[in-house]
Amino acid sequence: MVNKPIDVAILGATGAVGQRFIQLLEGHPWFRIAELVASDRSAGRPYSEAARWVLTGNPPGELGAREVLPLDADLQSRLVFSALPGDVAKEVEWRLAGAGHVVCSNASAYRMQPEVPILLPEANAPHAALIDVQRRLHGWTTGGIITNSNCTAAPVVMALAPLRPFGIEAIHVVSMQAISGAGYPGVPSLDILDNVIPYIGGEEPKLETEPRKMLGALDGEKIAFLDCVMSATCNRVPVLDGHMVSVSVRFGESVSEVAILQAWTDFRGPDPVPGLPTAPNPPVVVRAEPDRPQPRRDRDVGGGMATVVGRLRPDPVLDGWKFVAMAHNTVRGAAGCSILNAELLVENGYV
Amino acid sequence: MVNKPIDVAILGATGAVGQRFIQLLEGHPWFRIAELVASDRSAGRPYSEAARWVLTGNPPGELGAREVLPLDADLQSRLVFSALPGDVAKEVEWRLAGAGHVVCSNASAYRMQPEVPILLPEANAPHAALIDVQRRLHGWTTGGIITNSNCTAAPVVMALAPLRPFGIEAIHVVSMQAISGAGYPGVPSLDILDNVIPYIGGEEPKLETEPRKMLGALDGEKIAFLDCVMSATCNRVPVLDGHMVSVSVRFGESVSEVAILQAWTDFRGPDPVPGLPTAPNPPVVVRAEPDRPQPRRDRDVGGGMATVVGRLRPDPVLDGWKFVAMAHNTVRGAAGCSILNAELLVENGYV
Amino acid sequence: MVNKPIDVAILGATGAVGQRFIQLLEGHPWFRIAELVASDRSAGRPYSEAARWVLTGNPPGELGAREVLPLDADLQSRLVFSALPGDVAKEVEWRLAGAGHVVCSNASAYRMQPEVPILLPEANAPHAALIDVQRRLHGWTTGGIITNSNCTAAPVVMALAPLRPFGIEAIHVVSMQAISGAGYPGVPSLDILDNVIPYIGGEEPKLETEPRKMLGALDGEKIAFLDCVMSATCNRVPVLDGHMVSVSVRFGESVSEVAILQAWTDFRGPDPVPGLPTAPNPPVVVRAEPDRPQPRRDRDVGGGMATVVGRLRPDPVLDGWKFVAMAHNTVRGAAGCSILNAELLVENGYV
Amino acid sequence: MVNKPIDVAILGATGAVGQRFIQLLEGHPWFRIAELVASDRSAGRPYSEAARWVLTGNPPGELGAREVLPLDADLQSRLVFSALPGDVAKEVEWRLAGAGHVVCSNASAYRMQPEVPILLPEANAPHAALIDVQRRLHGWTTGGIITNSNCTAAPVVMALAPLRPFGIEAIHVVSMQAISGAGYPGVPSLDILDNVIPYIGGEEPKLETEPRKMLGALDGEKIAFLDCVMSATCNRVPVLDGHMVSVSVRFGESVSEVAILQAWTDFRGPDPVPGLPTAPNPPVVVRAEPDRPQPRRDRDVGGGMATVVGRLRPDPVLDGWKFVAMAHNTVRGAAGCSILNAELLVENGYV
Repeated sequence: MVNKPIDVAILGATGAVGQRFIQLLEGHPWFRIAELVASDRSAGRPYSEAARWVLTGNPPGELGAREVLPLDADLQSRLVFSALPGDVAKEVEWRLAGAGHVVCSNASAYRMQPEVPILLPEANAPHAALIDVQRRLHGWTTGGIITNSNCTAAPVVMALAPLRPFGIEAIHVVSMQAISGAGYPGVPSLDILDNVIPYIGGEEPKLETEPRKMLGALDGEKIAFLDCVMSATCNRVPVLDGHMVSVSVRFGESVSEVAILQAWTDFRGPDPVPGLPTAPNPPVVVRAEPDRPQPRRDRDVGGGMATVVGRLRPDPVLDGWKFVAMAHNTVRGAAGCSILNAELLVENGYV
Repeated sequence: MVNKPIDVAILGATGAVGQRFIQLLEGHPWFRIAELVASDRSAGRPYSEAARWVLTGNPPGELGAREVLPLDADLQSRLVFSALPGDVAKEVEWRLAGAGHVVCSNASAYRMQPEVPILLPEANAPHAALIDVQRRLHGWTTGGIITNSNCTAAPVVMALAPLRPFGIEAIHVVSMQAISGAGYPGVPSLDILDNVIPYIGGEEPKLETEPRKMLGALDGEKIAFLDCVMSATCNRVPVLDGHMVSVSVRFGESVSEVAILQAWTDFRGPDPVPGLPTAPNPPVVVRAEPDRPQPRRDRDVGGGMATVVGRLRPDPVLDGWKFVAMAHNTVRGAAGCSILNAELLVENGYV
Repeated sequence: MVNKPIDVAILGATGAVGQRFIQLLEGHPWFRIAELVASDRSAGRPYSEAARWVLTGNPPGELGAREVLPLDADLQSRLVFSALPGDVAKEVEWRLAGAGHVVCSNASAYRMQPEVPILLPEANAPHAALIDVQRRLHGWTTGGIITNSNCTAAPVVMALAPLRPFGIEAIHVVSMQAISGAGYPGVPSLDILDNVIPYIGGEEPKLETEPRKMLGALDGEKIAFLDCVMSATCNRVPVLDGHMVSVSVRFGESVSEVAILQAWTDFRGPDPVPGLPTAPNPPVVVRAEPDRPQPRRDRDVGGGMATVVGRLRPDPVLDGWKFVAMAHNTVRGAAGCSILNAELLVENGYV
Repeated sequence: MVNKPIDVAILGATGAVGQRFIQLLEGHPWFRIAELVASDRSAGRPYSEAARWVLTGNPPGELGAREVLPLDADLQSRLVFSALPGDVAKEVEWRLAGAGHVVCSNASAYRMQPEVPILLPEANAPHAALIDVQRRLHGWTTGGIITNSNCTAAPVVMALAPLRPFGIEAIHVVSMQAISGAGYPGVPSLDILDNVIPYIGGEEPKLETEPRKMLGALDGEKIAFLDCVMSATCNRVPVLDGHMVSVSVRFGESVSEVAILQAWTDFRGPDPVPGLPTAPNPPVVVRAEPDRPQPRRDRDVGGGMATVVGRLRPDPVLDGWKFVAMAHNTVRGAAGCSILNAELLVENGYV
């Protein structure tokens, strides 16, 4: 196994998700930020000048003086976290994988590529084995690409993963998503104060496909998508962090309320996931109050890595069940999930 | 026909909906506020002292000096608007109907009573004929009670009424409701700033039953509920006014996008509704932009009486269609609807 | 006098202030929008495509199809409203004035130019005579430039204008400014939700100089600035519209509370201002409640053109008085004020 | 010295400040919550039922089952934290002091009583000696009452304490206060969303007197108030936590920018304060960015116990300096300060 701490690079380090990587990696037991990488506009400048820190608290202390590297830099870190925008990610991530780096990406560029997993360890840790397929297909030696899901797919998949044994046939999702999901500067305040925007460009198609891949089973060298029908509606609400989803689901068999609650409560995910440093314990937290989860009051549960569920009750239209789920979109739905993914890859020997 | 202007009384005049009645009746061509009625705490005081004006702008000028009457006052106005809370409404409204007054109520107390209509004129004007049934059943001479719907049911029913010819079989609703729906003081700011509350007490059962009555057909002396299955999830969002609903619907037949858009665009409601003073024209406004309707930007369309719809697209889970609808909850969903209801009753000779 | 309606052009028509011009000029008794002008990015496209409408309600009906003209177009309208950003405004406005157009500008480019007035008609209508100076100095025939103030200076000057007779010696202002003051997209929601930003770039210097010019007296061919000392602190708050200022003022003489209240109540501004179509009546509205003015509840008073004041009480530090004032920043503080300015110029024969 | 951990009681444990006490005392090295006390409505019920938890995260685990005691209970804890409302506090706190308890109060009831200190340890730790005066005056043996300041006075006093050597002559404050300062349910969302309320009942008189006592010097058996003139204006803004103040100050001597910045940076407060468990280090944090401090981004600095200052620049009206200061109102301005006060009393031997 690799010696720890492991040096890591952050691509897109100046953006909102890049900042969250920096914040979450502070004091990480395995990883040490070695390289900060960003676009030409930032490259060559000290991080504290290049980045406008938008998170709570102070900009990072000792990292502030670190020089930001350009996207074409020759990186030393084996492990690379990418918070690049989709178009840039496509070229840069592929090149780095080819050069031997393991890339844990937040971008959507490669999510639907057959040999690239959308990894949510508690739900689908075995999908990580697709890295072997990547290496053979593309002649990569030590490199590889794994992605994490769209930030709204995360609470959907996490809440449904424990329920797969009941035979998921249909999933109906209406989301209420936080503004941080759009990055910085992102949503203009003139658009969202005292308002809801019932549309997020490109989000619904992702939410109608990614969960089926994530909840699918690794079948030899590819993933067999979950055979279910999905409908997604996405809304932006005036909330800082925390994506909430109203989910209805129909199962192939008759399922009781108790069985669902039990499945959630017992859920831990496959080994070695529960023992990884960033893994929340438990990953799914069930709230009994009628008015929970709420984004502001529940987004930091489990260090922002837990998915909080509640309000389980029958859905007469789907002839199934409906519930509310919520997860921190820039932690569990972005940077935090990538870090957990990387921990799994380290543990599995891919890094 | 009755001489105009017609004197009207407002019950619960000091509350948030009572204030909206006062605001909307200013300059009304048919109605003149003659009596302001409120609970014992307010009775006997000048209105401007008894009420804490929470709407935009100034408290009402000349009404400010008007003495607030107690709930047991002997009212002179034939027409009574009630913004009373449910428990008080039950007793007072019944007594007033027995005493010959026509009560247009915002309370839920009598909505599910078989001989009481939940009136949304464009959608179900013929239901007003139940007043004849009331009079015969209860021996009332000139009195009667009509209600308007729960404020969230309004945009649901208004958007679906034009689509009844397609055979509505299933309705799935997820709401995002404004804080004014909870009255004043209502929702504490500590609960809703930077937050969404996925629960509104008692709201979902109403939203799963009232629309079926409202969309039903008058069959002799009673209403045959629309034979469909409903599911409702209600959320409170940090928006001042305007309830937005994400609606999925399954029809008994195959329906095209064009047919739905045409039905919405052509919809006017039965005569004499389109000619009533408060009727919006058109009642259903279709927006083509991908990100509309929005509560803040669309709630005042048609003086707050229109229902704005958009984002029509297929729903693969229901094997039907989904769309977004929005209406001003204290205008179309409360006071404004009551006023339109009263106009219909006047035109029909019930007042 | 010129024939009405008078054709007008709007420069920067696609921006937030440009949109407010369009909204406020709808149905204006004297002015008719003839030309919509914007940057190269928008020029040549229909207005409805070029502009992303950010105000409440619908984009403008018949104007939507109008082709947007480029900044170097040969304009036909004698009267030009400019909502251009400062750098662009500098070149374009000067060129148009030279070509015979009267430019009513929202930009700061020429505010401190000695021969250009910062016009707030109720407070300083005589300053309009500087146009004669402009024409002689620059050889302009029918052209001229007038500006309106920084949007935060508007409520300060309007509240203090009636108090000039008491001898203003010192003005201390702390502002709480709405997000619409920053235009669109303007303030990112990630910066302002659940937050206050105690800084607005370039705002405090403007607020410490413009009011002294505006409150000054026309002395022959130039304005003698008000001889007083000023201090300004500017904050951005999560409010859509309405700039509120906490003002402390020291007078040269002892002044009673009653005298100040009377001065505000009696204030109308010099003739012909009170009779202009857009002039609010009264221009200064005094609220007696302890918790008014408030941006949301008072910004639309007088069609958004009034300045609402309240909370008058002694300030022991300045040995004077302190109070709160509020005005709608994009109406009274921007587009609405420009329109009122133009009405004054028409009435004075400059157009 | 007393044995640790020391049992403490929390009065008003179910309210917003009471909850903050519980949150902050979790894991405290010296104090252990032994008794939860609240009004009759809550007494006798388990805490988790009696209290509606309004803070972020989960209600307290093991304390949830604890039975809430009535206000007249015979308390065992020597040390009592009081989050009672003013009227109730007056009677209860006095009685407990007489019965030998040391009461650290958030209420305003005794703040202006001459022998009761308003303690902000970094600023005025010597004032704690007034407990000796109390004991002699009232015949109390081991009891006593200390208060902490109004939540808005805290950042004012903390920012000015390091500047006392320059001779403070005048203080002008305009506050922008968070909604949590009003408790729960507190400010209705209908009042504060998209709004600012320029008034907080009773707040300005407190803010114009308490700082003068707090910044005063202990002179024998009483406090000589700081001899300066004060002016305060208080505003409520839509912010969850964090009171921000815009402060102008005039000194008796000429002071340079560098001298002020140095005084802030060097400030630690008298021994033994810097070594107390809850003392932030440093207590005053200077931010160099032009747009800081901000409530959301800076309120948690130093665990919510630091005061963050910035924007130092000359104030021409006061012929002095102006700056912005911010502190967490329910931590530094309430529960956290009481805990720090109690730590000082323990260290000084009063508990």
